[in-house]
Amino acid sequence: MRQIIVKNISIGDELLIGQVINTNAAWLGEQLAAHGFQLDSALTIGDSEKAILDAFNACMDADLVLVTGGLGPTADDITKPTVCKFFGTELEFCHEAYDNIVALFNRRGFQMSERNRGQAMLPKTCQYIPNTYGTAPCMWLEKNGTVFVFMPGVPFEMKGIFNDELLPRFKKRFHAVPYEKRVVMTTGIGESFLADKIKDWEENLPDFLSLAYLPQYGMVRLRLSGRHKNAELLHATLDKETEKLTALISDYIFSMEDKPIERVVFDLLINKGMTFASAESCTGGNIAHVITLIPGSSEIFKGTAVTYATPMKTKVLGVPAETIENHGVVSQPVVEAMAKGVRNLMEADFGVATTGVAGPSGGTEETPIGTVWIGVASARGVVSKRFNFGKDRENVINRATIAAYEMLRQQIIVP
Amino acid sequence: MRQIIVKNISIGDELLIGQVINTNAAWLGEQLAAHGFQLDSALTIGDSEKAILDAFNACMDADLVLVTGGLGPTADDITKPTVCKFFGTELEFCHEAYDNIVALFNRRGFQMSERNRGQAMLPKTCQYIPNTYGTAPCMWLEKNGTVFVFMPGVPFEMKGIFNDELLPRFKKRFHAVPYEKRVVMTTGIGESFLADKIKDWEENLPDFLSLAYLPQYGMVRLRLSGRHKNAELLHATLDKETEKLTALISDYIFSMEDKPIERVVFDLLINKGMTFASAESCTGGNIAHVITLIPGSSEIFKGTAVTYATPMKTKVLGVPAETIENHGVVSQPVVEAMAKGVRNLMEADFGVATTGVAGPSGGTEETPIGTVWIGVASARGVVSKRFNFGKDRENVINRATIAAYEMLRQQIIVP
Repeated sequence: MRQIIVKNISIGDELLIGQVINTNAAWLGEQLAAHGFQLDSALTIGDSEKAILDAFNACMDADLVLVTGGLGPTADDITKPTVCKFFGTELEFCHEAYDNIVALFNRRGFQMSERNRGQAMLPKTCQYIPNTYGTAPCMWLEKNGTVFVFMPGVPFEMKGIFNDELLPRFKKRFHAVPYEKRVVMTTGIGESFLADKIKDWEENLPDFLSLAYLPQYGMVRLRLSGRHKNAELLHATLDKETEKLTALISDYIFSMEDKPIERVVFDLLINKGMTFASAESCTGGNIAHVITLIPGSSEIFKGTAVTYATPMKTKVLGVPAETIENHGVVSQPVVEAMAKGVRNLMEADFGVATTGVAGPSGGTEETPIGTVWIGVASARGVVSKRFNFGKDRENVINRATIAAYEMLRQQIIVP
Repeated sequence: MRQIIVKNISIGDELLIGQVINTNAAWLGEQLAAHGFQLDSALTIGDSEKAILDAFNACMDADLVLVTGGLGPTADDITKPTVCKFFGTELEFCHEAYDNIVALFNRRGFQMSERNRGQAMLPKTCQYIPNTYGTAPCMWLEKNGTVFVFMPGVPFEMKGIFNDELLPRFKKRFHAVPYEKRVVMTTGIGESFLADKIKDWEENLPDFLSLAYLPQYGMVRLRLSGRHKNAELLHATLDKETEKLTALISDYIFSMEDKPIERVVFDLLINKGMTFASAESCTGGNIAHVITLIPGSSEIFKGTAVTYATPMKTKVLGVPAETIENHGVVSQPVVEAMAKGVRNLMEADFGVATTGVAGPSGGTEETPIGTVWIGVASARGVVSKRFNFGKDRENVINRATIAAYEMLRQQIIVP
């Protein structure tokens, strides 16, 4: 059986003028791939009848069209009347949808408005699919063999409906081709050098496997993936090829799992029953922010001192004022004193510190914008390193955060 | 003159299996709108010749097609040969592109690889546009009156080239229709209730204006926007309609500018020459993180103590241990002591503190998951408030951060 064609359409002016970033397409693509389907394209259009009809017509070669957005309670939504036009039907009151909206308002203790009642008006020929996450309906319609599913645009609602209601229906209706992937996380080597190192291996990959390079903030994520009707063969081939790949680039690999570096550090520390704390200047709390997004981080993370104002480095972290005066605030002695200082202050096993010039101003000839010193203190003493992360402020903050976690990881795994 | 049709195509398998979220389309849409153009659609496709050719053909009704991605140095990129096929040309070595790559490697002190040399092979008929941000080229080609511009997919490079090189060329080549928008930021009222309050006003808006509701983390952003060849009329009408709108919902407005709440606070503090510091428990450094993304934040931001481990609240911030013991760590007395403590420690005008249960575990009947106490200390004393932000960890952190900045803003603007 052939792989079905799946397309996504996102509707919303707000997506085209940049006020909201469309994260639904990426999420749907990931979920579909994980369940043996493949997203072929994702189209974003505005709230206009013509754009919607054009997009629907352009999707008639697909087996499944997942439409998100355009179903909210307010007047900027024109999706439903256009759906009726395309499918040659009209709106009618749907009791099941109405009961669902009433139940939702009761649970939340809010009053319903007339607009919310309007959300229960659905195309006559649609199959109503319950949305227990919000008031917007989910609808299933078909035309000449193409299935159109309409979902709310709110990510939380869309994800819930997709998992609870749609995925089981898709599996019943369509043929899924086994898909599997492996991810190898590398750092300390650029994309093109990595490619040169693995060129021969890559050229001899079997047809049903492909490799993608996904560079991001001083790391390159390698994704080896494939589809094959024989799931066992696919799995065994991926095992074998991943083994060959990792042998070629072992020096640069920091994880064989698709997880961010802070998650790698989290898992290591949990295993060892150890803790860390950070002293942040140029990273401004981002080291703390990314670790505290992980549930349970209080087990391994003691806290942070963001000493953005220079005198606070002395007052809070105990960096001697003369060290700052003699060496400058962005210097090796200062970052090492910060790392040791926060380790003592927070009573942690490891202290991580950053001091640098994130820009866009503040650089000097000796210490240009992008210069960052990173230090890690432990029971063994303190290590430190100087980096330059370029001129973009957000980029400097993100790359310094990742480099700090990589230096911390290196210290944790020291035998 | 008519409004030109602009379409965006993003190329990359990684965008369709969810490993990378496409933020380029939103950014391009925003920039285009701000300069009098309008993004009509954004299509994401995979790295396949057929998908690329289909997408190019489907864009031949556009005046301008902005293509991002597919120009990296590695083998997963098939864009350039496909471009040659579509435009009926072939690749040739471009000296200008090569010199640019060499210069970039020299600046960074890296060695060039053979693959990077390959990036200087460009379609013969293309106009080469310099990319000083990276090694991928930017290319301009035309076919039957439709302009195709190919940009790197790396957001940092794409943005730089767009601003430096492309926007001036677009302005010379195409006619821009005046576009203007107003944004009203509201909090404390849901989307459907807001809609009911302004229904009559909204229904009587002139045809060339439209209103969008953009809900996010306990706020609703209202965007009133329009296009009109008469820029003065557009401006005056927006003035008048915005005035009517704000009169209807004045209780819920926290800003009339489209900027995040931390930016509102930044501007207020810069104007007053005042500073703040934060003591963060459940927000885990996010209050610091969002303010330090703003260039110049060191003027108004002294620092943060993330006291994730409970004893650190006593040791670093001076919260009396018996206060924590008697009232619990998520309590009004603790948050108030934290706010006062960090204000003293960091020698700031305002101290902001959070303590709460971000979840997914750690809730009790008295203090369920999502409970957050927020406090703000100033020379006038301390204010505090209890919130519940629901069960999703990231949502709790984000909503608590926004609420903390809103409480800080209220204290700054007290006469």
